[in-house]
Amino acid sequence: MSLLTSVDTRLSRVDDFSALFDAALHEFLANRPDVAPELAAELREMVRAGGKRMRPRFAWEGWRAAGGGGDEDVVVRALVALELLQCCALVHDDVMDRSTVRRGRPTVHEVFMMRHRRSRWAGSARQYGDSAAVLVGDLALAWADDALVTAGLSGAALQRAWVPWQAMRVEMMAGQHLDLLGVARREESLEQALRVAALKTAAYTVERPLHLGAALADAGPDVVACLREFGRDVGVAFQLRDDLIGVFGDPAVTGKPVGEDLREGKRTALMALALSRATNGSAAVLRRALAGPVNDALVERVCGLLVEIGAVDAVEEHIDVLVTSGLAALDRTALDPEAKRELVKLAGKATVRKA
Amino acid sequence: MSLLTSVDTRLSRVDDFSALFDAALHEFLANRPDVAPELAAELREMVRAGGKRMRPRFAWEGWRAAGGGGDEDVVVRALVALELLQCCALVHDDVMDRSTVRRGRPTVHEVFMMRHRRSRWAGSARQYGDSAAVLVGDLALAWADDALVTAGLSGAALQRAWVPWQAMRVEMMAGQHLDLLGVARREESLEQALRVAALKTAAYTVERPLHLGAALADAGPDVVACLREFGRDVGVAFQLRDDLIGVFGDPAVTGKPVGEDLREGKRTALMALALSRATNGSAAVLRRALAGPVNDALVERVCGLLVEIGAVDAVEEHIDVLVTSGLAALDRTALDPEAKRELVKLAGKATVRKA
Repeated sequence: MSLLTSVDTRLSRVDDFSALFDAALHEFLANRPDVAPELAAELREMVRAGGKRMRPRFAWEGWRAAGGGGDEDVVVRALVALELLQCCALVHDDVMDRSTVRRGRPTVHEVFMMRHRRSRWAGSARQYGDSAAVLVGDLALAWADDALVTAGLSGAALQRAWVPWQAMRVEMMAGQHLDLLGVARREESLEQALRVAALKTAAYTVERPLHLGAALADAGPDVVACLREFGRDVGVAFQLRDDLIGVFGDPAVTGKPVGEDLREGKRTALMALALSRATNGSAAVLRRALAGPVNDALVERVCGLLVEIGAVDAVEEHIDVLVTSGLAALDRTALDPEAKRELVKLAGKATVRKA
Repeated sequence: MSLLTSVDTRLSRVDDFSALFDAALHEFLANRPDVAPELAAELREMVRAGGKRMRPRFAWEGWRAAGGGGDEDVVVRALVALELLQCCALVHDDVMDRSTVRRGRPTVHEVFMMRHRRSRWAGSARQYGDSAAVLVGDLALAWADDALVTAGLSGAALQRAWVPWQAMRVEMMAGQHLDLLGVARREESLEQALRVAALKTAAYTVERPLHLGAALADAGPDVVACLREFGRDVGVAFQLRDDLIGVFGDPAVTGKPVGEDLREGKRTALMALALSRATNGSAAVLRRALAGPVNDALVERVCGLLVEIGAVDAVEEHIDVLVTSGLAALDRTALDPEAKRELVKLAGKATVRKA
């Protein structure tokens, strides 16, 4: 069945990717067998609760930029894998970080924990919640691979796509582990923070999705190399922007509160950069914030220090350099002009100063 | 590179599956990229520590029984997926069950927890250990799919294999969730215990591996149906035998200690059957054992009760019925006679009375 039967045909233009993608996502979810209903129900809720579909979007533009070979419906179906992989990452990360809210609702392990409590079941509610959430994440990972393998790609296209897909999954896991290690080891080096950004954000969110799209379009090595370079630079810049928002807050209504990263003790590049420039007294304040607990006064003090020390300017400058070099990479090979314009727009959206 | 280059060619006979399989497993592990070295190292250790390779073995005999079409080396490479999936199941189950020992060494979460403690890292050692183990299990699941997709199967063979593979993964997860729910809900019904056995052991360990092997051989629907029926029956019988061993112990030197399942509060078919036949007084003793804690005197009392009530005889009888009907299923279609003899042998090994 064509995805176009389930969305208005007016929407089937390449620039109406969101509608096509959501149709494919819901089609996939609707066709899952009902073997693990409680686990599947939570996963479906989570997918429906949204997210920005950034990874599928980058992959789609990568596919179009590389010439867009193959059946459009099949490609969209294959990209459902990216959204499901992201669900695996979020559900498992939330267990690891003990997060309680995600996409405006309780996290998966919280939902199962509360069910255990409400039902007065035997044993530890927290352990049951965590265990069920691990299984939901496992299911998301299995479904992600199912989406790619059963999308209807030719054997050759599937093998091409599997190269970036294989790399992306393990890079996502490696990034998460480095993130945990950073907190455990009280990591302060800029190099390490940038390595996590390169794996968790650049590779997983931008570079590999673009690579996957290009592979689906059977792109040549030049196109792949340029798209990946663009993705690496823009991806790290995106993480740096997120580091700033994580401390100074997002002015948009739905955004992050001021000081959120500080409250979570995140070892960001911003903090590493600040530590490397700080005098002993200022460094002690920053370290106190990283070790937590953090109150409003401390958040305000750290915000002031980050500006004063020049860490904010240094990060802004680094973002500029990365975006400039990323955009330059797009000019070094022949790409579909419409898709290229979209990539430039996406790069801007992900990295531009918000306030 | 043929697997035969890495094992003595004398061993390349179909009946020397273990050597071929271990060569393929080690080849796969040796060729993984070094992106997440700490996670990969633990997974490699776990694979090397062994296991009986039961799932690959059943899949191999299923492939042979169905005529063994296709390249032997490619099939063996594909079956590596089954062993890696089992690693995912074990690592995540051990976190959920708080197990400390697996295959004669500390469980993965224990290894990471001890490393955290030894290094005097920041934060909770247990949380770090559990988180790292979740990631190792995720990596195992991703690698399992990688093994199947990159084994060198034709596009058509991969799509055929993906049908049982897809089912098997979700059945494994559903079985584990039902197992958790059984403990939480103090489940006592025989039906529920048999449902867990059908998913966790029959489907995941015997039926789907046979189905996968048959799919790789491009077997017709008759052969698939008979092999699956055999697998379902023998698989449940295997779980029932395991229930008995879990209470009465395994006489083999390396086996399970007496009362292990009782100490873990497992809701087995054996206990459900006993509860359904017990008088009020006996039922109270059985429930006390299930709720724990359990000491040696209580283990001894429960062992006596299970025999006295007739639960042991009833389970033995059910095993006999299942093995008989499973073996009869093998006679209802044309199978390779040598592989059929092996399947009969494997069924015996998995279900025969040990003492």
